Amino acid sequence: MAKKKTNSDSTLKQSKTDIAVGVLGSGSFATAIVKMLVENCKTVHWCVRNEFVKGAIELRGHNPTYLTAVNFNLKNLKLTTDINEMVTACDIVVLATPSIYLSDSMDKMNCEYGDKVFVSAIKGIIPKVNNIVAHYLKDEFKIGFRNQAVIAGPCHAEEVAMERLSYLTVATVEEENSKKLLEILSSDFIKVSASKDILGNEYSAILKNIFAIGAGIASGLGYGDNFTAVFVSNAIREMETFLEAIYEAPRDVNESAYLGDLLVTAYSLFSRNRNLGNLIGKGYTVKSAIQSMNMVAEGYYAADSIYKTAQEKDLKLPIIETIYGILYEGKNAEKQFRKLTAKLN
Amino acid sequence: MAKKKTNSDSTLKQSKTDIAVGVLGSGSFATAIVKMLVENCKTVHWCVRNEFVKGAIELRGHNPTYLTAVNFNLKNLKLTTDINEMVTACDIVVLATPSIYLSDSMDKMNCEYGDKVFVSAIKGIIPKVNNIVAHYLKDEFKIGFRNQAVIAGPCHAEEVAMERLSYLTVATVEEENSKKLLEILSSDFIKVSASKDILGNEYSAILKNIFAIGAGIASGLGYGDNFTAVFVSNAIREMETFLEAIYEAPRDVNESAYLGDLLVTAYSLFSRNRNLGNLIGKGYTVKSAIQSMNMVAEGYYAADSIYKTAQEKDLKLPIIETIYGILYEGKNAEKQFRKLTAKLN
Repeated sequence: MAKKKTNSDSTLKQSKTDIAVGVLGSGSFATAIVKMLVENCKTVHWCVRNEFVKGAIELRGHNPTYLTAVNFNLKNLKLTTDINEMVTACDIVVLATPSIYLSDSMDKMNCEYGDKVFVSAIKGIIPKVNNIVAHYLKDEFKIGFRNQAVIAGPCHAEEVAMERLSYLTVATVEEENSKKLLEILSSDFIKVSASKDILGNEYSAILKNIFAIGAGIASGLGYGDNFTAVFVSNAIREMETFLEAIYEAPRDVNESAYLGDLLVTAYSLFSRNRNLGNLIGKGYTVKSAIQSMNMVAEGYYAADSIYKTAQEKDLKLPIIETIYGILYEGKNAEKQFRKLTAKLN
Repeated sequence: MAKKKTNSDSTLKQSKTDIAVGVLGSGSFATAIVKMLVENCKTVHWCVRNEFVKGAIELRGHNPTYLTAVNFNLKNLKLTTDINEMVTACDIVVLATPSIYLSDSMDKMNCEYGDKVFVSAIKGIIPKVNNIVAHYLKDEFKIGFRNQAVIAGPCHAEEVAMERLSYLTVATVEEENSKKLLEILSSDFIKVSASKDILGNEYSAILKNIFAIGAGIASGLGYGDNFTAVFVSNAIREMETFLEAIYEAPRDVNESAYLGDLLVTAYSLFSRNRNLGNLIGKGYTVKSAIQSMNMVAEGYYAADSIYKTAQEKDLKLPIIETIYGILYEGKNAEKQFRKLTAKLN
């Protein structure tokens, strides 16, 4: 069933939409989203990191660094390095940078953007404000929740590149925005569900990175599959406790956007967060483990912010507390996990 | 953290219990349970399949076929091939044969057993009556639920053999039985929780084998990690629907006995059920896939029984229906899964 074709010039699709959409970011998930969008949109505006990346895509038809097997038809792309040019040209802007780089780009935004819809595909905390993207957009840019959306769901970019069937969830307040996003993202290999739980979807995507660090630590310490299963089943219950405390809403945490995303991250050997944890479990110091990775592990920053939020709300989250202690208080991973095992069930 | 020592002669433990416990079965899980019990019990009565197995254990100190690395001190074991001898000698009898062989042994039971506690560690349907163990014991042997218990939880026998930390759940109606079972099963490497949900725990252990066949089929067909995560998150919701319909009880399906057991089976490359599915996904006929495996895949028999129960109760369980169609109605796996993908979210 996994299609081998990775050329995104879908000339077969007759009626592409005129909806003006742009993507900010040039990492693997940004590239995967552009690939999804060119299936449905006549033009995708793509604001990449710098002139080198822009030039390389224009020259070769693919991202020089991430998902290099995905070839784009340049006629479908409007490349830029200027966020204002992209935002001005678009009605919908998908934010898909690593969370630590988002503010670098957004700080340059000085065009009109009051009627645009900003869609976060970022699964992390903005370090500058130590908060999630939804709050960052609202507090710093006065972008209300009605003009926001969140893309969630278990979705390794590498599998999107291979057109392996993946499911996304789009969380919006406005029905109209939901419809548009379903239209521009759905395809033969992407199925999209709608949700209204913007905050729940964003927080769960962030939490799962912390839990994935934990799954990695357990693996690095030599715990086995039996323990991992128990760990993950405790993690989803901690996620539910946290989400209920932050934003009570009718939600089933066993839907794909919550549990599914946790599973794909905690069980994947390709997860950066899991790998960070694995190195720590094997005895690397936190600092050296971070330095040895050349990509950002979002869960590292998330652990700090989420732990503090949990403390403020007086929540008992043994896994989050354990990982915070290891990452930020220099506590010994082996000892902390031994203590944690007594709290799980 | 995973201990290397696999010798179960725990002479260190000073105060072993006199509780008279026996195990029926000589497969890998039965052997793992005997290993757990000898940590705590002065004597474990072990009724094995035949004289060859009995003689081999007596000669070598380990099971000749399964978990051969686990060495027993024969002083702790009372081996027999006679179920009546074992049941008569014990207060607690753990049933741990493959489900299809249970009735062969139980049919021979003609001793007094009215005051014994029967603990099922079997995760399958008894083909003879097309029903779960709890109902089989109640209907065929008049063993009431008060004299029954279920051992559940994510627990690869191979990891128990290596003394890797594992969590079990013991479901009982009687508090006193629960206490005894916690006492004789808990150890440095086994943590045990109590539950009152006998039927829910038994059904979930059976359902997860069917879902694992499905995860295997998906993998064999070429679906990726993104899809598997969606599949499993739909599976746990189907499990909840089924359990609620069968036996409404206050339960959280995200506890380890339910979700954890599903995860360890669906994600493990060592799961027989997942392997059976994988062969079918790769194009083997169901018959040839079954023949190529030299161990029983419990989920095959379970799919028939569970599907029929779901039909009687008018439940919509798309995954169960899909797998039943492939296993029993000769339907094409690729086509059925394509249809299924439209029903998941």
